[in-house]
Amino acid sequence: MAKRCFSVSELAVLLGAETVDSEHLIDGIGTLKSATQSQLSFLHNGRYQSQLKTSQAGAVLVSPEHRDEVESIALVVADPYIAYARATALFCDQAVSAKGNVSPLASVSESAVLADNVSVDAHAVIGDRAVINSGVSLGANSVVGADCVIGENTRIAANVTLYNKITIGANCVIHSGAVLGADGFGFANNQGEWIKIHQLGGVRLGDRVEVGANTTIDRGALDDTVIGHGVILDNQIQIAHNVIIGDNTAIAGCTAIAGSTRIGKNCTIAGACAITGHLTITDGTHITAMSLISKSILQAGAFSSGTVMEPHQQWKRNAVRFRHLDELFHRVKKLEKL
Amino acid sequence: MAKRCFSVSELAVLLGAETVDSEHLIDGIGTLKSATQSQLSFLHNGRYQSQLKTSQAGAVLVSPEHRDEVESIALVVADPYIAYARATALFCDQAVSAKGNVSPLASVSESAVLADNVSVDAHAVIGDRAVINSGVSLGANSVVGADCVIGENTRIAANVTLYNKITIGANCVIHSGAVLGADGFGFANNQGEWIKIHQLGGVRLGDRVEVGANTTIDRGALDDTVIGHGVILDNQIQIAHNVIIGDNTAIAGCTAIAGSTRIGKNCTIAGACAITGHLTITDGTHITAMSLISKSILQAGAFSSGTVMEPHQQWKRNAVRFRHLDELFHRVKKLEKL
Amino acid sequence: MAKRCFSVSELAVLLGAETVDSEHLIDGIGTLKSATQSQLSFLHNGRYQSQLKTSQAGAVLVSPEHRDEVESIALVVADPYIAYARATALFCDQAVSAKGNVSPLASVSESAVLADNVSVDAHAVIGDRAVINSGVSLGANSVVGADCVIGENTRIAANVTLYNKITIGANCVIHSGAVLGADGFGFANNQGEWIKIHQLGGVRLGDRVEVGANTTIDRGALDDTVIGHGVILDNQIQIAHNVIIGDNTAIAGCTAIAGSTRIGKNCTIAGACAITGHLTITDGTHITAMSLISKSILQAGAFSSGTVMEPHQQWKRNAVRFRHLDELFHRVKKLEKL
Repeated sequence: MAKRCFSVSELAVLLGAETVDSEHLIDGIGTLKSATQSQLSFLHNGRYQSQLKTSQAGAVLVSPEHRDEVESIALVVADPYIAYARATALFCDQAVSAKGNVSPLASVSESAVLADNVSVDAHAVIGDRAVINSGVSLGANSVVGADCVIGENTRIAANVTLYNKITIGANCVIHSGAVLGADGFGFANNQGEWIKIHQLGGVRLGDRVEVGANTTIDRGALDDTVIGHGVILDNQIQIAHNVIIGDNTAIAGCTAIAGSTRIGKNCTIAGACAITGHLTITDGTHITAMSLISKSILQAGAFSSGTVMEPHQQWKRNAVRFRHLDELFHRVKKLEKL
Repeated sequence: MAKRCFSVSELAVLLGAETVDSEHLIDGIGTLKSATQSQLSFLHNGRYQSQLKTSQAGAVLVSPEHRDEVESIALVVADPYIAYARATALFCDQAVSAKGNVSPLASVSESAVLADNVSVDAHAVIGDRAVINSGVSLGANSVVGADCVIGENTRIAANVTLYNKITIGANCVIHSGAVLGADGFGFANNQGEWIKIHQLGGVRLGDRVEVGANTTIDRGALDDTVIGHGVILDNQIQIAHNVIIGDNTAIAGCTAIAGSTRIGKNCTIAGACAITGHLTITDGTHITAMSLISKSILQAGAFSSGTVMEPHQQWKRNAVRFRHLDELFHRVKKLEKL
Repeated sequence: MAKRCFSVSELAVLLGAETVDSEHLIDGIGTLKSATQSQLSFLHNGRYQSQLKTSQAGAVLVSPEHRDEVESIALVVADPYIAYARATALFCDQAVSAKGNVSPLASVSESAVLADNVSVDAHAVIGDRAVINSGVSLGANSVVGADCVIGENTRIAANVTLYNKITIGANCVIHSGAVLGADGFGFANNQGEWIKIHQLGGVRLGDRVEVGANTTIDRGALDDTVIGHGVILDNQIQIAHNVIIGDNTAIAGCTAIAGSTRIGKNCTIAGACAITGHLTITDGTHITAMSLISKSILQAGAFSSGTVMEPHQQWKRNAVRFRHLDELFHRVKKLEKL
């Protein structure tokens, strides 16, 4: 397949770098270590500074103070990491907008409303009254339930499932295996037997939301589950019914958030955390990997739980002692009173 | 789409409440705070009692002692939460029984046996000799392997995968992305290389089982993996080969259960737990969120592991100390001997 | 469906056991406890030795020292567990090679290249320029993106998703719901808003790799994510972008590995672990269940973190004390100085 190419001069304009006059062609991006002469690279971390000397990259995004260390062509920008992020869009096949082909193998309800330039791949299914806005692409074998609304330019990968009445904003990315709108885990216990509480709410995603592969976002019990604008969710995250997540919060893989918890804006939650239900986590909170959060966090900061790794035999001795920790405090108190 | 409507009088009959004479129409359910005049609400938690006064709900499910506090119409029941659960079924589009349409876009083996009123959506696949009983609905793009048996009125959502020889009881719900019958993780190590142990057992689910989105239940190595009647499984749970789960046990999201472990009846296991293999967990056991269970539990009770969250810097100091906990016990013992 | 049958004499040859002269027919495998006269069983664990006397199995794989304890026919092998593993392949329907049928309901790009004896099930989708080698089987509703390469005899189950440019070796098994090549979780923060870093690398799997159900392996940011030969991955594992996993490493269910971490060869990582990003884990490392690994492991050994389960009320008292552990060390130090 033909690769996209840009001259270094063009890249300077596209990435907001200082003007450069060079027709040298760039057809991809690499790390300082791996980039070839036809590739762009970048320096965003002082740790890699020494690699500037030996890098074979055809051009390098750097901040002003490193301009003279670049052996090939320096593309000088205020923030090389952000410029790199923007450059990735130029070289990404999947970032192109929808081509406007609806596969004849897709199953589209007659009552669904599709804008003109929508792409629908083979065996995708679009339910009754769904509204698919301009520029949306829907991957192969994905299912969009009845009464869903998909905002402009949102890309839905293959094998995604949207149940009925899911609303997704503009410019979102939903990765394969994600399931939006399955029933929240609501049951009433009647003398030992569980009676299902049918989940009547929906799911609403803002604009620019990314949902990772195999992530699940349950529909609300009565009100909706709500994901704010610009929220980024990694793979295999579980968002239970009626969770509310504020704008621009980032959550890493395999974290689970139980029902009705509200997460603020601009939080970062690392991977493999568990957050119990009905909590409030304030704006700007940071949570480290594999933490259990079972109380509300009302003042921003960084929070953790758990213990750190150690050799197994040593850990075993300590872990056994943990079960007597309260007793140890009493023993020390007694000693202090002597 | 037309909404279903009931008069308050009808609802009283349907939900087993004290008789009420009112033709006021109800078309949905809301919380005390959000319900409108055409919606039903309920009070099941003392915390919300004060909202009875201000609620706009057209009717409210309450226990006898709160009947006089309802501003609109009180629907008096013994247990408002159970009555609410039953009410959700009345207003849920997805709870309706199968319509009996087999999509012409589905792929159904000639040797499969489908009862009369079975619904099969577009691009679903039903394998050889599968038996699909009356009232079953199978969602778009789901796959039912050869020799599967699906009990009456079971609802299988879109994008579900059932491998070969999976048996599912009546009135179950299987959510999207669930995978039943993938190979258990069985390998023999031969001088460093792993030799696959093909998994020859199946998976058997009882009646009224709920399986959450993206939950996986592996087939047994030789015997079957067995899920009892009335078991409810949330999203992203991993059930390994030959696990046996007793009736009416509830397991929350992201919990993992390793091979050959037996979980009793009426247990509740919170989210993000890990239960290691070959254990026995007795009936009525409760396990709190993110606990590691690595020993059998032979006497019922509530069990936990882990530590609780704290500010990160403080946690760091404590976590480092944990690695010297056994040593500290020795030091205290020494002091006590002085 | 007709079952496959072997005489005990044939099995002895096929499994490398000492020669046996018996035309007794075996049509399956069972545990010592459950096996019938037409089934093979095995003894690999001393714990079950007493069952040899009462087992109804038609033949039993044993090591030489147990030959005389078998009541039916002993199949004497050096390692009964490995012989059992090999026997499972004889009785497994799914282990048969591809039949060479491409379903007319599959959607195969005209530019894809399929070898002669490839099986493609209904509604599977194969993208442009994909190369599917001999003996590959592709399950129903699976999606293979453009420019993928699938090695000989690899079996891809139903509802699998391969994004573009994924390379899979020979003799691999990819289970349902697995997603290979979704975007790594890469974003640059620009004054609170997240700018997507499009992920330009791919995913490469070696030969004989097993990928469990609903496991996700993200594509690399610039370079590839790489899984070595003979790696076995259980269900619901998350492998982030640019992770590298060495040959023959085994990882159990629900473990998450963050970006750019390198795992060595012949490691065993138990279930529900979290390994943070940019670490190096050396060859032959063992990690126990639900451990958090946040530092590199440069010397092989067994490692753990966390605490062990205890009754909830007792745990609560100890967990509260953990938050004052550092303080306790200071108090003991003070006492020691008296």
